[in-house]
Amino acid sequence: MELLKNRILKDGVVLKGNILKVDSFLNHQMDPSLMAAIGEEFAHRFSSDAITKILTIEASGIAPALFAGYFLKVPVIFAKKTESSNIDASTFAAPVHSYTRDTDNYIRVSSRYLASTDHVLIIDDFLAHGEALLGLADLVRQAGATVAGAGIVIEKGFQSGGQRVRSTGIRVESLAIIKDMSEGRVEFT
Amino acid sequence: MELLKNRILKDGVVLKGNILKVDSFLNHQMDPSLMAAIGEEFAHRFSSDAITKILTIEASGIAPALFAGYFLKVPVIFAKKTESSNIDASTFAAPVHSYTRDTDNYIRVSSRYLASTDHVLIIDDFLAHGEALLGLADLVRQAGATVAGAGIVIEKGFQSGGQRVRSTGIRVESLAIIKDMSEGRVEFT
Repeated sequence: MELLKNRILKDGVVLKGNILKVDSFLNHQMDPSLMAAIGEEFAHRFSSDAITKILTIEASGIAPALFAGYFLKVPVIFAKKTESSNIDASTFAAPVHSYTRDTDNYIRVSSRYLASTDHVLIIDDFLAHGEALLGLADLVRQAGATVAGAGIVIEKGFQSGGQRVRSTGIRVESLAIIKDMSEGRVEFT
Repeated sequence: MELLKNRILKDGVVLKGNILKVDSFLNHQMDPSLMAAIGEEFAHRFSSDAITKILTIEASGIAPALFAGYFLKVPVIFAKKTESSNIDASTFAAPVHSYTRDTDNYIRVSSRYLASTDHVLIIDDFLAHGEALLGLADLVRQAGATVAGAGIVIEKGFQSGGQRVRSTGIRVESLAIIKDMSEGRVEFT
């Protein structure tokens, strides 16, 4: 997706440790018109897949997922990272390892909002090690629902997540795949 | 906003302790078309206020704020509740008391994304005690920016937050104000 790639080249900042900072338009400050274009692109790529629900994870997945749901005309659920008084007692839960913080955390979705008849599109902002995406897919499977595919805004193609997730049979559509950024400059595949 | 009020009456669940559960369409599962209508209504109510930025707080504020920003054509920032590797070292921070958990937590925004020239619309899903809203207004003032007003999806009119925030001079636009729900039934003002 050229619009996104150009924005990454213009406003993304490469930091040590293979960190790409895109908090000026994606995961802290957000550009709503770019989020809309991203959501529309996901909707387009999965338009013939009879999606019934979108599943993402708080907080940075919400913006692209919400617009994808808007264009596909389906509800959007965000998995929670913390125990919340806003969630039902009955939940699906899956562990997700955070490499940044080296901790294991559970993500949760109320069992009320995923049914065995659902055909679920998973959306997230980043794909690196694949932990979050596999955790979300686990929630879908616990509900007996089907993973229709995954829509990723930025995939770090030099890390193992894309391979890991695709090897489980999940179709992954990434709007920008980074081949290398070790020299401080982003290069796409 | 009739569309919202009707949805609350239809799908909201009143629990003990003055809790209104709207997690089927607002803060866990989200209805994107309702979120769009809510964002458009906020944009309409603040259309003549020369808004330059929208500020909200993760995670449930993001959906209504994103669509408000989409219609007003301005960037949307979400304040973070946890220390994150995605945030700059230089931040504005404000304490927010949680009555649900009885804890004080800091909310943070990168100082890069709020400038003294900004005219900021604050958006949140709920207004009850007013803690989150006053914390967000504090962040705006630390930047030397102006609070243009606050857009709230659901205000618990029987709690003190609305009065507290309005008494500081902030214009608060709530799309649904609940007068009473002590009998397990929602009544709007």
